[in-house]
Amino acid sequence: MFRRLILVIALLAVSVLALDGNPSVTASTDEGMWLFSNPPVKLLKEKYNFTPTKEWLEHVQRASVRFNVGGSGSFVSSNGLVMTNHHVGADALQKLSTAEHDLLKDGFHARTRDEELKCLDMELNVLQSTEDVTAQVNAAVKEGMSAAAAQQARRAAMNTIEQESLEKTGLRSDVITLYQGGRYHLYRYKKYTDVRLVFAPEQDIAFFGGDPDNFEYPRWCLDVAFFRVYEDDKPVKIEHYLSWSEAGAEPGELVFVSGNPGSTDRMYTVDHLKYLRDVSLPDVLNLLRRYEVMLNIYSNESAENARQARDDLFGMQNSRKARLGGLAGLQSPSVMLAKQEAEDSLRSHVRSNAELSATIGDPWSQIKETLSVLLTIRDDYTLYEQGRAFNSRTFDIARTLVRLADESQLPNAQRLREYADAGIPSLEQALFSEAPLYSDLEKVELADSLSYLMEIAGGDNPFVQEVLGGMSPTDRAAQLIDGTRLFDVAYRRSLREGGKQAIENSTDPLILLAKLVDSRARAVRKVYEEKVIEPQEQAYAKIAEAQFAAYGDSVYPDATFTLRLAFGEVKGYELGGQQVAPFTKIGGTYQHAADHNFEAPFAPPKSWMENKDKLNLDTPFNFVCTADIIGGNSGSPVINRQGEVVGIIFDGNIQSLVLGFAYTDEVARAVSVHSAGIKEALTKIYGAKELVNELGN
Amino acid sequence: MFRRLILVIALLAVSVLALDGNPSVTASTDEGMWLFSNPPVKLLKEKYNFTPTKEWLEHVQRASVRFNVGGSGSFVSSNGLVMTNHHVGADALQKLSTAEHDLLKDGFHARTRDEELKCLDMELNVLQSTEDVTAQVNAAVKEGMSAAAAQQARRAAMNTIEQESLEKTGLRSDVITLYQGGRYHLYRYKKYTDVRLVFAPEQDIAFFGGDPDNFEYPRWCLDVAFFRVYEDDKPVKIEHYLSWSEAGAEPGELVFVSGNPGSTDRMYTVDHLKYLRDVSLPDVLNLLRRYEVMLNIYSNESAENARQARDDLFGMQNSRKARLGGLAGLQSPSVMLAKQEAEDSLRSHVRSNAELSATIGDPWSQIKETLSVLLTIRDDYTLYEQGRAFNSRTFDIARTLVRLADESQLPNAQRLREYADAGIPSLEQALFSEAPLYSDLEKVELADSLSYLMEIAGGDNPFVQEVLGGMSPTDRAAQLIDGTRLFDVAYRRSLREGGKQAIENSTDPLILLAKLVDSRARAVRKVYEEKVIEPQEQAYAKIAEAQFAAYGDSVYPDATFTLRLAFGEVKGYELGGQQVAPFTKIGGTYQHAADHNFEAPFAPPKSWMENKDKLNLDTPFNFVCTADIIGGNSGSPVINRQGEVVGIIFDGNIQSLVLGFAYTDEVARAVSVHSAGIKEALTKIYGAKELVNELGN
Repeated sequence: MFRRLILVIALLAVSVLALDGNPSVTASTDEGMWLFSNPPVKLLKEKYNFTPTKEWLEHVQRASVRFNVGGSGSFVSSNGLVMTNHHVGADALQKLSTAEHDLLKDGFHARTRDEELKCLDMELNVLQSTEDVTAQVNAAVKEGMSAAAAQQARRAAMNTIEQESLEKTGLRSDVITLYQGGRYHLYRYKKYTDVRLVFAPEQDIAFFGGDPDNFEYPRWCLDVAFFRVYEDDKPVKIEHYLSWSEAGAEPGELVFVSGNPGSTDRMYTVDHLKYLRDVSLPDVLNLLRRYEVMLNIYSNESAENARQARDDLFGMQNSRKARLGGLAGLQSPSVMLAKQEAEDSLRSHVRSNAELSATIGDPWSQIKETLSVLLTIRDDYTLYEQGRAFNSRTFDIARTLVRLADESQLPNAQRLREYADAGIPSLEQALFSEAPLYSDLEKVELADSLSYLMEIAGGDNPFVQEVLGGMSPTDRAAQLIDGTRLFDVAYRRSLREGGKQAIENSTDPLILLAKLVDSRARAVRKVYEEKVIEPQEQAYAKIAEAQFAAYGDSVYPDATFTLRLAFGEVKGYELGGQQVAPFTKIGGTYQHAADHNFEAPFAPPKSWMENKDKLNLDTPFNFVCTADIIGGNSGSPVINRQGEVVGIIFDGNIQSLVLGFAYTDEVARAVSVHSAGIKEALTKIYGAKELVNELGN
Repeated sequence: MFRRLILVIALLAVSVLALDGNPSVTASTDEGMWLFSNPPVKLLKEKYNFTPTKEWLEHVQRASVRFNVGGSGSFVSSNGLVMTNHHVGADALQKLSTAEHDLLKDGFHARTRDEELKCLDMELNVLQSTEDVTAQVNAAVKEGMSAAAAQQARRAAMNTIEQESLEKTGLRSDVITLYQGGRYHLYRYKKYTDVRLVFAPEQDIAFFGGDPDNFEYPRWCLDVAFFRVYEDDKPVKIEHYLSWSEAGAEPGELVFVSGNPGSTDRMYTVDHLKYLRDVSLPDVLNLLRRYEVMLNIYSNESAENARQARDDLFGMQNSRKARLGGLAGLQSPSVMLAKQEAEDSLRSHVRSNAELSATIGDPWSQIKETLSVLLTIRDDYTLYEQGRAFNSRTFDIARTLVRLADESQLPNAQRLREYADAGIPSLEQALFSEAPLYSDLEKVELADSLSYLMEIAGGDNPFVQEVLGGMSPTDRAAQLIDGTRLFDVAYRRSLREGGKQAIENSTDPLILLAKLVDSRARAVRKVYEEKVIEPQEQAYAKIAEAQFAAYGDSVYPDATFTLRLAFGEVKGYELGGQQVAPFTKIGGTYQHAADHNFEAPFAPPKSWMENKDKLNLDTPFNFVCTADIIGGNSGSPVINRQGEVVGIIFDGNIQSLVLGFAYTDEVARAVSVHSAGIKEALTKIYGAKELVNELGN
């Protein structure tokens, strides 16, 4: 499943992979996660003889929705109906669930507006406009500034631009770093925070095949959910929504994907990729396995525990599978060779031009240096600033409250990026969420992470001892979680409203711990931002400059969980001498279940077993296309030339996990639910006529 | 479950734990894993007014059986019937299983001798005699010898003593290192290799409650299996077997446990324990989680995959849970404090006596130095010599063949310990086993471990590149496993018989790989043995000397997977203000299942559901006692004063995981199946009258 900012980087080794390590794009492939401000007009014209109009682009842009939990979606009716994946909606479903009603597992269907359930802390964004502010941001950084001064100046510029835009437009305003530092763009979003659940199927059909089938193809999944945006307690009237294609995606058809790919590293230097391969990905995978085993143990203790941890466990397994695929790609010699060749080619282009050479210098070495610095601060950074040592939602809340109190006292320009005024409303929505927190789960996670802290920093480390207060990790976690009042939203509000003074007076054990940790966390973050991130961005800006010089505007930026347009063809592929068909049919669900004795996770839910006879089993269900996607694209509409919905992205096949750092369309495919399959299931299985009638109207 | 040489070291933090970090034992506790040559006569007399006779001890010793796969057992009839745990027999059950008949899952029952199934590569040992050879071994090490020379001389002495004993007695002869180097004993065993499966219940009742209940109490498990030893195709006539107690264990009763605890580290210095806490245990746990996740993924793909990996997956989860408990103990300040106090007390005793002080010197610092050396070679040692980089049974076979060819050319005294003549028959039994190997599983495991090699040693490491041959881990693993002929036992035999020449001529890809790796593995092993193990043994010998001087013979040696006698009382405990009763009843099984909706792993097998009415539900099923046990004790008979079987050890509670490095009887308990429960189930559920009639006769 393609959700969250999954750092997906590569693929299971394919020895003759047609990897395109070269950042310039030619008409022969369907490559690119394009900015709406720089769409691949030439490519589309040459290969598909299609030219999107300005209106087409604006319509698609404004019908596209970002789910801030880490996915994409689209408006599919004038009444604010939003379609996304079940697994993107899972966070909301999990939070709305109780011991008595497990919406994530059992699904939900509001037959009337009144029955729609308000989500606890969902935020949806719709991109209204973008603006290139590179000059403004870079102007803040003066010639000869130290990296530290440059970082502070750049941050101040970005905070200020956002704040001014917010004041001027009332829109959520984010300055986005593109091309790993080559460009800065201001994105303005219409923001919706009253989002209500309309429909979700059972997880057993949304995620049919479970972890074994995840990132595989063929598939048979109804990975969809519907929400509705409200304002002033009424459904929002939407001008730009997507019409519903009756036929749906057809073989060989040109399709578009409009969504928010989370993160790619295609611009990374070979040194940087090797750092991912040898250091950070193995480390993250160890952590993911640790969490997976921990959550499995917790879940196995009782059905209620399993319910509490359901979405978290899915998230760990999903990331683990995605990153294993990424690591496999980086460990494949053919992949690394292609990257090396592309880098050599660019460097040789730079060297061949004296003027360019003088401007660009040697950013590759500069990046290598930042990685050496990173190695020396990695443990502290991941433990204290990223918070691996305190894996608990209540600790996150404590940390946010402590930082809010401190940062609020600073001028906006000087604040940490996420505490700048423009971002505070979103921060507060999460902070004051009534989403349930489970004391037992908090204890297990916190105890495990305090144990991890001892493992990484050493049991005799004086700071570790201070954190543990002379206790074992288990005892300390119990003391903290039993003692904190942060489960109570009213108490959080009182601490927020009381400002710095309230935090200083608080004796809440988690607040005290967050204060203890924060100076250390801030110290390492400062080093990280000034000695790693700033020089990296400066270096990548140079590399971007070199790429623009060499390849013109045929270079699209790495993914940044912002809106992009991808395109491709509905098309199967060949694997191991076998032809993999582009489509599956609804009837195949039952065959696949039978092949696995109808045992979980291959057991369709009761509704599907009981209503099988009603279905047209030949209805297309899932399909693949060559569009260039990555984690974060989950829930993206798949759109035809007419701007109609023909499907919805929910996954990539295992061969697509290479897309994190290089495009290939040989066997890599995006996987979608077909619009006809969605309608068939809604009608025949769920009797959701009112929803079907609304789609596209 | 207590199986294999589980490095269990500690316990979940108990803040007021009555930990005995002092190696001297007083009459107030039931501490000790005693040598049969130095039984705790005084303790037993003082606390229980019982004195085992020489005959009693010899009878129990000779009725005790070691399962070389990593557990214990006992003779329970004159016709060679051996009782052990289901989870000790699991290795044999797994190897006898096929895609059609899953004996490990579904159980087995031979109603006649003819139906008994010959195990594929089982070896059982019965201890015949022991002899202190410390003087001989130490005499080989001359004053002023370098550690390297000392290590070689010591190894030569041990190899030679074993070989001479084997020639003289025909018995398996092992020189055992006791007190971490303080003593060397020669153990002679009667060896049985024709072992046949008689009875095993379904895994669902043997391991009722699965991973969630593992290392917990109360329990309801029929964790037993029966085998029979044969010689010349006939059941062996056994003189020393244990009678079956009709009443079984009773509350407050003195009981004995005769078995083979695998490994404890109670003598370890505080520095050494901190090394375990901060370095080796976290590292091993990461690896166990990695294997657990990998085997889960493999198992989830199909029922047949799950069958193939069943025993391995259980082993990973079992070790993971045991070691998590151990790490939690080491991370508990109270535990480390007790160890520190005991060490300070011993060191102060040494300092207070000038002569002793001169003899002992400072072995504590010496151990600390060896740990610094170990840190520098750890990666190479674990990757190449321990074989983490090549986690595959076929690679193990290749390595053994390559080493056998090389070592066979050396004089016996100079060989690696496990290739000395005395050990060759056991080595060959494993090498030529017809136990099934699964190509798909081999590939998955080998690919994962080659990926691990890249992660640990670095992707650009030239030796790693040589190992991978320019391929990705997945491709290389496929090439090796598809290309090897080592699945064929006849081919293994031909390589063994062909000696060095055959190995040199072989083009088998795994043989070539094993040859490539072996020089590197041998080099790091040499450093490990000479610069870590030898100085450590010398230092621990000094510490042992100090302990003997301070505490006399009330010091028992750390566990070494050799026969020990433990004792204790059948006794419940208090936990969180609640009294935990010492016994459970058979009827409780159904209640526990109902509490978990009869869902796996809380679903009793069909036989138990169908025959519930026949059972006397009040029959005792499992019970706890205070005896001092650890991994390897699984399957040990629990014996009363009369030398009768009253139960069989199968687990320790979670609080007992501290026992790896310090005894406590406050809440730590050994968990057993009750003899009455075994008989009740055999009779009423399985209709195994012939087996019941044979027990104790």
